[in-house]
Amino acid sequence: MPTVRIEPDGFSIQVASGDSLISAVERAGVIVDTPCGGRGGCTKCTVRIVAGDLAPSEACRQAFDAGKIAAGWRLACQVRVTADLTVEVPAAARVRGERIVAAGAAESRSLDPLVFGTVVEAGVPSLEDQRADLERLLAAGGAGLAGLAPELGFLRDLPRALRAEGGRTAVVARRAWSGGCGRLISVAPASRAPRVLGAAFDLGTTTAVGELWDLASGRRLGVASRTNPQREYGADVISRAEHAAGSPGGLRDLQRLAAGCLDEILAECLRSAGCRSADVHDLVVAGNTVMQHLLLGVTPEHIAMSPFAPAFAAARSVPAAEVLITAAPGARLSVLPAVSGYVGGDIVAGLLATGLLDGADDASGPVLFIDIGTNGEMVLVAGGQATACSTAAGPAFEGARISHGCRAMSGAVEEVRFDGTDLVCLTIDGAAPLGICGTGLIDAAAELVRTGLADETGRLLEPGELPAGTPAALAGRVRLGQDGPEVLLGAGREIPLTGRDLRELQLAKAAVRAGAETLLAEAGLAAGDLARVLLAGAFGSYIDPANALAIGLLPAVPVERVAFGGNTSAAGARLALLDRAQRERAAELARSVRYLELSGRPDFQERFAEAMFFPGAASG
Amino acid sequence: MPTVRIEPDGFSIQVASGDSLISAVERAGVIVDTPCGGRGGCTKCTVRIVAGDLAPSEACRQAFDAGKIAAGWRLACQVRVTADLTVEVPAAARVRGERIVAAGAAESRSLDPLVFGTVVEAGVPSLEDQRADLERLLAAGGAGLAGLAPELGFLRDLPRALRAEGGRTAVVARRAWSGGCGRLISVAPASRAPRVLGAAFDLGTTTAVGELWDLASGRRLGVASRTNPQREYGADVISRAEHAAGSPGGLRDLQRLAAGCLDEILAECLRSAGCRSADVHDLVVAGNTVMQHLLLGVTPEHIAMSPFAPAFAAARSVPAAEVLITAAPGARLSVLPAVSGYVGGDIVAGLLATGLLDGADDASGPVLFIDIGTNGEMVLVAGGQATACSTAAGPAFEGARISHGCRAMSGAVEEVRFDGTDLVCLTIDGAAPLGICGTGLIDAAAELVRTGLADETGRLLEPGELPAGTPAALAGRVRLGQDGPEVLLGAGREIPLTGRDLRELQLAKAAVRAGAETLLAEAGLAAGDLARVLLAGAFGSYIDPANALAIGLLPAVPVERVAFGGNTSAAGARLALLDRAQRERAAELARSVRYLELSGRPDFQERFAEAMFFPGAASG
Repeated sequence: MPTVRIEPDGFSIQVASGDSLISAVERAGVIVDTPCGGRGGCTKCTVRIVAGDLAPSEACRQAFDAGKIAAGWRLACQVRVTADLTVEVPAAARVRGERIVAAGAAESRSLDPLVFGTVVEAGVPSLEDQRADLERLLAAGGAGLAGLAPELGFLRDLPRALRAEGGRTAVVARRAWSGGCGRLISVAPASRAPRVLGAAFDLGTTTAVGELWDLASGRRLGVASRTNPQREYGADVISRAEHAAGSPGGLRDLQRLAAGCLDEILAECLRSAGCRSADVHDLVVAGNTVMQHLLLGVTPEHIAMSPFAPAFAAARSVPAAEVLITAAPGARLSVLPAVSGYVGGDIVAGLLATGLLDGADDASGPVLFIDIGTNGEMVLVAGGQATACSTAAGPAFEGARISHGCRAMSGAVEEVRFDGTDLVCLTIDGAAPLGICGTGLIDAAAELVRTGLADETGRLLEPGELPAGTPAALAGRVRLGQDGPEVLLGAGREIPLTGRDLRELQLAKAAVRAGAETLLAEAGLAAGDLARVLLAGAFGSYIDPANALAIGLLPAVPVERVAFGGNTSAAGARLALLDRAQRERAAELARSVRYLELSGRPDFQERFAEAMFFPGAASG
Repeated sequence: MPTVRIEPDGFSIQVASGDSLISAVERAGVIVDTPCGGRGGCTKCTVRIVAGDLAPSEACRQAFDAGKIAAGWRLACQVRVTADLTVEVPAAARVRGERIVAAGAAESRSLDPLVFGTVVEAGVPSLEDQRADLERLLAAGGAGLAGLAPELGFLRDLPRALRAEGGRTAVVARRAWSGGCGRLISVAPASRAPRVLGAAFDLGTTTAVGELWDLASGRRLGVASRTNPQREYGADVISRAEHAAGSPGGLRDLQRLAAGCLDEILAECLRSAGCRSADVHDLVVAGNTVMQHLLLGVTPEHIAMSPFAPAFAAARSVPAAEVLITAAPGARLSVLPAVSGYVGGDIVAGLLATGLLDGADDASGPVLFIDIGTNGEMVLVAGGQATACSTAAGPAFEGARISHGCRAMSGAVEEVRFDGTDLVCLTIDGAAPLGICGTGLIDAAAELVRTGLADETGRLLEPGELPAGTPAALAGRVRLGQDGPEVLLGAGREIPLTGRDLRELQLAKAAVRAGAETLLAEAGLAAGDLARVLLAGAFGSYIDPANALAIGLLPAVPVERVAFGGNTSAAGARLALLDRAQRERAAELARSVRYLELSGRPDFQERFAEAMFFPGAASG
């Protein structure tokens, strides 16, 4: 088996010849960013072979010029390992913030999954010992199997499995826990013991990510992601909830789309790891409350209208087959507990992964945890108390309602910087500019205010109004469009940013900021009291902290206090999958968080109005 | 609503106009014998209208002559009540021995089913109380619903049900018990609360009987029976077990036949009671171990071969849908616990129904409980201790392997009596003789030995050997057939009984008797010590006790000590359905019974050889 050494980490791992490089790297515990789902479309997984030989695939040749190919650049998801090699995985290819998540997870990284496999020496019946097969097995299984009821399939397989190898029997079982009762899931002769695999998912409104784990060894076997196909029914949870309630079959359709998405992710992980779905015995999903409702086929319509009560908040466990997920017979899918209709299992997973309520962080002072998407969900942890709220940021951060907005895809302007003479606009993959995504929008707004092209109210100045000393190149980007002034972004000035675009951004950032300020006020704290502002979620991981502060998206803290949590939702789901104590912990966390309903609060409305303004260059 | 008064009991019951008379009678608690399943084919349910008017149906006119019609004779299953009336239900129409069963049952006739309905005042969410629907419902439901997990269907129906009537919600739930964990099954607005129905079945090798019950009121809504369609694969459990194991799809076929049989019975009960299968939330089945395995689709092949270990013995509960029974979503089917591969849930049900181990009977002395069919299963209860065994009686009692044998159907010679000059042969329904069934066979053998036409070894005497003074009519029934002497039975001497037929009967009765004697010997008891011999099962209910003793089928006790238990298997299943404490009791009983394996015991073989002889007229 070839050995792959990963730099700069220095990990080494043995892989089967023919394994994809990305799965090898990820088996070593280095998570590579694959927004395209490992299809070679995004080039995020660009790595460099520094020793050993690895032939470039056609996809690599298309992605890199001859020089880069010669220098060893490859798409990790598009090449297969055939010989020993050393590969450098640059920071850019890694899911950012993963280190912090791991740290939070590390606090309880014990491997004690709900589902486990065991081999029982049950012996075989005789005229002196005519006990029934099941009673015999349970007696031999001891405390580990006591009180577990067999699934019907288990009972049907038991007689042959028990007798095939003189009573040496491999059993897969699920322990009892608050969300369900213990079960004997599958049985086989010991020599044909099935693998015990599990999957953890973050089911986001925009993107879903999944990981395949070997529950016996605690090794990650694969990771993959997909765009949530429900997007065709609207970018935000409200429009999906309305579709589920409003159109015949709408709920069924959304359920199937969600299930199909997780199914695809799981199938890809299984393929890359060479495993069978029949060995996947447990699945854990973290998502916002609406996503968790839709995945189970439960209407979220009442979350979308006052008083916003969900159908369920506590963790639920259902047969995977009942929600159309392809897994082992008897496999169950669990969703994490939610706090409310707008603070869901993804946020509880985040608290689980970051360990913010485990006391460890208390010493260091109050922490504000923010997950920014179409909703801005946040939790203020201070003095061991947690208070949460959610604000409707709208889809501006995902490029929607922006004249030339787009999602964070290849060609999106993701970074805008003023170099003293002009705006430097960088696109994802360095591709020709197609539009501007959320992070680019935040950068642009910050620079426009710094350079005086926009005032504190967000009004774009007309060409004639520009401040004295505005560099010519910069001034050249301002023109008068049909709806007023516009600023042209992109290297070739092909992406106009309008006043209305800025207004959309202001609405989004004001909602988030007003929520944060209301939490602080409720706790009697000021922004300066915050020891840390922890940004979670894919979008949060790519925000430029200085600019997020500059436009007033975040409470005014020194930039070094802003940290990144990465995908804390996936990390929390993973913890629950690997350690059943974490499921109980998640239930405690969900109960312990106080939810603050912002709708109809005058003080929130006031803060929202104030937050519309840009703090101005002073605070940048 | 018309009132029906039942004589001689004196019960009165109100029924909906148009209800069938048999369902009215049975709602009053009088069980009518309907081997034909209430199709008017067997005339067992013949009753007499003594007051009021009830028009005869066409089926009645075919069954009775004008005089009987005028005298009020009707088939209870073939007429519908439209006005007040008084009906006499003769003993002949009643399931014999039902009184004893009821007595056993009466000791714990409390109504406390596992599945129950309740109306919860849950209220509706508000901005001040945003709890999730499920948490709100559980909190309002209090102790009754605490710890019960919702089925997915429940969760999907909850949001609308909760809001339809201001929070007044009807819930159907299953309490937790050793065999499974508690569940919230269905939910609806209070005004549309579903009925909570349940069904209890005796799944016999030959015949299946089922009852439909209203679990809220404890009223029986219907009863029906069917021949077990598995018979096409053999009359006894061994041949069915072999078919299940030996032929591709055999197990699946037998499972479907068993499920289909129960499904038909349930459907008929629902029709007669005007109820919906969607309201049937719980099903309990008692059957021998092989039947219970086949119903669940679990191979019984290892029961059929030494060391005869079943796959499971403890009670099991599975989703009704998984075994193809049509009932409410979330409905479960439970099978009663067994003692061993050959002492099944039907026998445990019998102990439950008769209360033999409840101490009440201890004072009166040792009791031998016997269920005679193709197997003779028996339990000796002495000094609070129970010991059980099973013997292979073979199918002779059901008419198989008898030259002119038949089952207990219309036209079967069911009773044979020597009136001093000749044999009087009575057939079921008084129809023309078609063959001889088990009870007729026992009567015939007893009379042949009494009258000296057969000797104690079972040898039929030739016409020339008959004892002096043999009445001419009797002697005229003896002829020399191709295989030796034969005795012609039936009014018109159309049913020959051969020496080989007698031999088959001897093998069957010897097996039963040897088992009983072995149990007595193990307990250090003699037959005379028995306070009671309790015959259970359909066949047992029709045996003539004096003749059963005369041929040595039963241990030699005074005839008045022989009692009838009726269908104790169905009665036990009914108790488990109506009172969850009885399920726990059944588990205790199954554990407390000691099983005696007879195979390979020399002392059993000796007793078997001895028991082949007929005790002779002396003991008749």
